[in-house]
Amino acid sequence: MENFKVHILGCGSALPTMKHASSSQVVELRDKLFMIDCGEGTQMQLRRYRIHFSRIQAVFLSHLHGDHCFGIPGMISTFGMTGRTAPLHIYAPASYEPILQQTLHFFCQSLEFKVEYHPLDTTKQAVIFEDRSLTVETIPLQHRVDCCGFLFREKPTKPHIRRDMIDFYDIPISQINNIKAGADWEMPDGEIIPNRKLTYAPDPIRSYAYCSDTRFIPQLHEIVTDVNTLYHESTYTEEHANRAKIYWHSTAKQAATVANEANVGKLLLGHYSARYDSEEAILKEAREVFPESYLTNEGDCFDI
Amino acid sequence: MENFKVHILGCGSALPTMKHASSSQVVELRDKLFMIDCGEGTQMQLRRYRIHFSRIQAVFLSHLHGDHCFGIPGMISTFGMTGRTAPLHIYAPASYEPILQQTLHFFCQSLEFKVEYHPLDTTKQAVIFEDRSLTVETIPLQHRVDCCGFLFREKPTKPHIRRDMIDFYDIPISQINNIKAGADWEMPDGEIIPNRKLTYAPDPIRSYAYCSDTRFIPQLHEIVTDVNTLYHESTYTEEHANRAKIYWHSTAKQAATVANEANVGKLLLGHYSARYDSEEAILKEAREVFPESYLTNEGDCFDI
Repeated sequence: MENFKVHILGCGSALPTMKHASSSQVVELRDKLFMIDCGEGTQMQLRRYRIHFSRIQAVFLSHLHGDHCFGIPGMISTFGMTGRTAPLHIYAPASYEPILQQTLHFFCQSLEFKVEYHPLDTTKQAVIFEDRSLTVETIPLQHRVDCCGFLFREKPTKPHIRRDMIDFYDIPISQINNIKAGADWEMPDGEIIPNRKLTYAPDPIRSYAYCSDTRFIPQLHEIVTDVNTLYHESTYTEEHANRAKIYWHSTAKQAATVANEANVGKLLLGHYSARYDSEEAILKEAREVFPESYLTNEGDCFDI
Repeated sequence: MENFKVHILGCGSALPTMKHASSSQVVELRDKLFMIDCGEGTQMQLRRYRIHFSRIQAVFLSHLHGDHCFGIPGMISTFGMTGRTAPLHIYAPASYEPILQQTLHFFCQSLEFKVEYHPLDTTKQAVIFEDRSLTVETIPLQHRVDCCGFLFREKPTKPHIRRDMIDFYDIPISQINNIKAGADWEMPDGEIIPNRKLTYAPDPIRSYAYCSDTRFIPQLHEIVTDVNTLYHESTYTEEHANRAKIYWHSTAKQAATVANEANVGKLLLGHYSARYDSEEAILKEAREVFPESYLTNEGDCFDI
């Protein structure tokens, strides 16, 4: 199966600390990279973890709080200085566009690539990006400002050819694409070899959902049902459920409840409040509800 | 003597690397802190080197290139979240004010402190800040955009009282301030004890000049004559003098030439191009002209 991974660049919350950088992740599918959120210092994290700048096609910003987007101007500026020519697509709520444009107009006048802004409607689940191998959908979230998550889903792939059967029935190479597309094979004597005998099932479709920042949404599991990997913010433990409520964040237990009800493969935790010296309590709380829960840390890379 | 130091938070140039952060320094005089430049990630450097956020009164921005000011929004945002109430003064070229205001209006609506913007004329040498203990003057520099350096100069202090003489002549405590202010002392028998017998000379006035970014200015030494410590950018070695010329930067030799002609106490080097794996060649080149040259590095603290 092709690469499908998520690189964690930052998993802290509003206050960057010595332990955790501001929010940012990079989703890698085959040779393409997609960034989710871009807090201050993200360009340094890209260097630290040796992520190829030039392969980043698009940045998806969940919402317009500084810890999720203050890294954008510096990163674009650096992309310009390092010779980028391919357009960079930014998917974000509309209100950031004039601010970004003004900033780029002032600071980055000689960019040799286009920054293409795609305003998002954060209130709807909709496909906002599509290419040959994946789609990206918005996931409406509930935070203090307009906010959405992102669901990265592979497109169905074709079945695998059974090389042994192709040889056995002496099928010419020219027919392989037809068979991949579902055709049966007719032997010279008129016998029909059904497609299922000539192929293995295609790889299962993998998916990754990023849900941050958000308060607990009881119906969220319906959108992220069966995803392989779910990142759901877990800013607090239940001990601080009241703060979670005030600031429209989630507790680890709430994140795990979504994961459990959605029957996901694994849950990634993050967006930790700076108040915790260790995130072990967050992990413990999540695992009590959903055992396949994992803490994220800067530099981690998870297979999806 | 009171504290008078400079903390190096970042001494890289346009491209932040794993070795060097973007430009930022903090000047400490007694209990007051003044920031010079504020590249992306500066707030993380403040944490790393345990500089007290709340003691920073003002930020002086030399010019409006991203590597000198992209850290401002995040730092102000964090100051807001950590309960700051004292105003923060920003001294910078005028053109940044609308951009900063728009950014703060959008991202930092609930700040409980004022951000007071003081537009700078970078073409003149002028006192732009003054309090009981120091003045800050602009130093006109020559870069691709409007740019000035900053000269921090202590105000003259009063002479030190000679406690032994005060006791010997039995001078009452109530007269100390008069004597500090220069008065002689008249004994009961009419004898005049001259002030110079009662006091030691005041501490010498110390000064720190920050000159970045700039091309070599042959007359610059006139403005920074006799400063105790001069920071002068040294982006390149002479090997890349041509690049220095194209980008309006300086070589280490040029920085040292200014230091030498100005007869400064010591020269701090910085704003290193990302092209150098080691800055030893920069140091060597500077020391050949001016032996009291020193490389800066993140986390360094120099007495002025």
